[in-house]
Amino acid sequence: MRVLASELRQVLSSAMPSEVVELRGWVHRVRELGGVSFIMIRDRSGVAQAVIEGKVDLTLESVISATGLVVENEKAPGGAELRATNIELIARAERDLPYPVNGDPAKMGLDTILDQRPLSLRNPKVRAIFYVQSTIIDAFSSFLRAHGFTEMKTSKLIGSGTEGGTGLFAVDYFDTTVYLAQSPQFYKQTMVASGMERVFEVAPAYRAEKHDTPRHLNEYVSMDVEMAFIDSERDLIVLEKELLASIFEAVAARNGAELAAWGATVPSAESVERAPVVAHDEAIAIAAIELAAAGTATKKAYEISPEVERAICAWSAREHGSDLVFINEFPRRYRPFYTFPLDASRTMSFDAIFRGLEITTGGRRHHDYHALLDVLPKFGLKAEDLTDYLNVFRYGCPPHGGFAIGCERLTQKILGLSNVKEASLFPRDRKRVRP
Amino acid sequence: MRVLASELRQVLSSAMPSEVVELRGWVHRVRELGGVSFIMIRDRSGVAQAVIEGKVDLTLESVISATGLVVENEKAPGGAELRATNIELIARAERDLPYPVNGDPAKMGLDTILDQRPLSLRNPKVRAIFYVQSTIIDAFSSFLRAHGFTEMKTSKLIGSGTEGGTGLFAVDYFDTTVYLAQSPQFYKQTMVASGMERVFEVAPAYRAEKHDTPRHLNEYVSMDVEMAFIDSERDLIVLEKELLASIFEAVAARNGAELAAWGATVPSAESVERAPVVAHDEAIAIAAIELAAAGTATKKAYEISPEVERAICAWSAREHGSDLVFINEFPRRYRPFYTFPLDASRTMSFDAIFRGLEITTGGRRHHDYHALLDVLPKFGLKAEDLTDYLNVFRYGCPPHGGFAIGCERLTQKILGLSNVKEASLFPRDRKRVRP
Repeated sequence: MRVLASELRQVLSSAMPSEVVELRGWVHRVRELGGVSFIMIRDRSGVAQAVIEGKVDLTLESVISATGLVVENEKAPGGAELRATNIELIARAERDLPYPVNGDPAKMGLDTILDQRPLSLRNPKVRAIFYVQSTIIDAFSSFLRAHGFTEMKTSKLIGSGTEGGTGLFAVDYFDTTVYLAQSPQFYKQTMVASGMERVFEVAPAYRAEKHDTPRHLNEYVSMDVEMAFIDSERDLIVLEKELLASIFEAVAARNGAELAAWGATVPSAESVERAPVVAHDEAIAIAAIELAAAGTATKKAYEISPEVERAICAWSAREHGSDLVFINEFPRRYRPFYTFPLDASRTMSFDAIFRGLEITTGGRRHHDYHALLDVLPKFGLKAEDLTDYLNVFRYGCPPHGGFAIGCERLTQKILGLSNVKEASLFPRDRKRVRP
Repeated sequence: MRVLASELRQVLSSAMPSEVVELRGWVHRVRELGGVSFIMIRDRSGVAQAVIEGKVDLTLESVISATGLVVENEKAPGGAELRATNIELIARAERDLPYPVNGDPAKMGLDTILDQRPLSLRNPKVRAIFYVQSTIIDAFSSFLRAHGFTEMKTSKLIGSGTEGGTGLFAVDYFDTTVYLAQSPQFYKQTMVASGMERVFEVAPAYRAEKHDTPRHLNEYVSMDVEMAFIDSERDLIVLEKELLASIFEAVAARNGAELAAWGATVPSAESVERAPVVAHDEAIAIAAIELAAAGTATKKAYEISPEVERAICAWSAREHGSDLVFINEFPRRYRPFYTFPLDASRTMSFDAIFRGLEITTGGRRHHDYHALLDVLPKFGLKAEDLTDYLNVFRYGCPPHGGFAIGCERLTQKILGLSNVKEASLFPRDRKRVRP
């Protein structure tokens, strides 16, 4: 019977510790000592030690099956090891492994990790990132389902962008050209207006931006939320606080080993609840004071730059004991045409900044057809170019709003990764289109 | 306090039936009778009746709030209605509704339904399709998570196809050309070999095929599964049976109203378990007899055509009492190069046919590096064009396999929709790229 590496210890305490069991997995490391071979076997649950008499001829990364009895050994991972009586080779790895996959990923370098994804993902610490990501997606979806949201899957091929044509990748589509969607904005609003009221989607989104920074991806996983019958962006902030607390709780409960591997912790529900909500102009003023005090201001803060994001989070951590801060009431000029106004100059919009990085943009949207028609010319847009979009509002759309969380950015900041690309399985940037 | 349409009845039996409550939603229908107006209000949970003295000036599809007391009325939906004392207009719908959205979708016609998605989705029966689809995705993910699978999100932009360059949409990507992925095949196998062993993904997939049939979409939601340490495709069939039974059970439990709206039922777990597994050549022979007996054969059956799919399902329903049938052991010529051989002419592969339509293709894959190198030339492929793919196997990959379920096809066949496009929120075909 196959047991997982993480289950070895349980075998010992089970009713039949003297039963022969099988470990299957990859040869993580081999050591010979005093006529005995110690083989670290890696499987999806972790690493376990098998011990066998004599020498073994096993290349690193080969897939093997080891059978024997489980015995206690306090020095072995998990406090137990397999005394193997037989080792079978299932798939032999070539000898020319380009670099050791069982080492410290910090020594591999980012380009090696990304260029050699099929190998670098074999490193338990590198793979740990994606166990955490899987939990994030599940917790996001489960929380929203439990609050009456429906999961939707919308097209990523759009005729043109609701936010204009810049920053879009063009696709040759039979005899025409379409574009990869930057967000499901139009579709989220359509579904709210359809009467579904509350929707979410987890799907790829595309930005044809030439940035190559530790915070940008050209293809990322967008976790989108939209809901009807809100009064302002503050309703969305309340929802996102509960949602993030729920995600952090799930990661803490299920990914203790992965957090430990990265020396990371997640914020407590109480500290998420304490996250301050600061108006845009005030946030900039606070950040300016922080940066001046630290002597690290590179220029006058006038918008929410990466530097301001870090400064406002340092302030939030110190003054409110929270790694999270919400900035709301963005000036109109910083937000797309569909953002609902608070007054002549400000909007019902917000960003969430977590550990120094923007992870969410959201806000209330215009829901009134005539208000939308009025606002379009101010943004240089024409109603005739947006007929599909405008029809959503022509026939009764409730007040609504939503937000999107960048899945890779949230993963990055939970684990303390230095580059968002580390949190994308197969990242795409300007120069990287493989593997 | 807002209550949902579906909760009206509960208010009556609650401790405080005399409390004023609020219904919010869309004006689904208005009827005047004897100086009283009956307003059907539609929200995310269903439709409820509000009654108010006098005439009302409400256009259909306007969003309103109605407040009043709940009273029993056996003739109203759910056995209760709201005696409204106040009705507030939240968002007024224009009078020029292009067609009634509260009618029978069968009378709308498929093109109207798809062209007018923002409106057609307001029809409760049309929207019901996507509540079922949301359950399918959740049940698929939950079952797999409970069985040790990790959710992954992989790139949809690939340098070239593992299955050759035909049928791919080209994307202008900065200074180069990439393609929209037909499937996460390469990435699923990478993750298995990485040591994750068991992975799944729910994501868009693209086929640049010119077909325009009731069974094809150019963009669809692929529910992919891949797992390590299988012996043959039969292990995958056992897994898919349990997975489908779990999905059907979830739909039956959560979507009773949606199934009823379409007059649909899901197969029982027992009937899924009874689904026969028939070898490819035998399936064709059975179908030939079925078609001859029915007098409906249009030509000699020699491959698994749509006609054969329907015939083998008719046979399975009659002989095994199951809407599902698995066809395995496909000849080598019908399967991609990476399919694991059963013998010189047959492969360890399978399709699942459900209610006359193929919903799954899967199989065991080659895992041995040298076996893959041997097989490439037979398919006209060169190792140097597949270095990223081959590196997955060069350093120890366990025996593995997987399958993919077409989410829209499964939705279609659960509800008995005549065209798969009805099961896609914003379907893309050769001519349709909007809304």
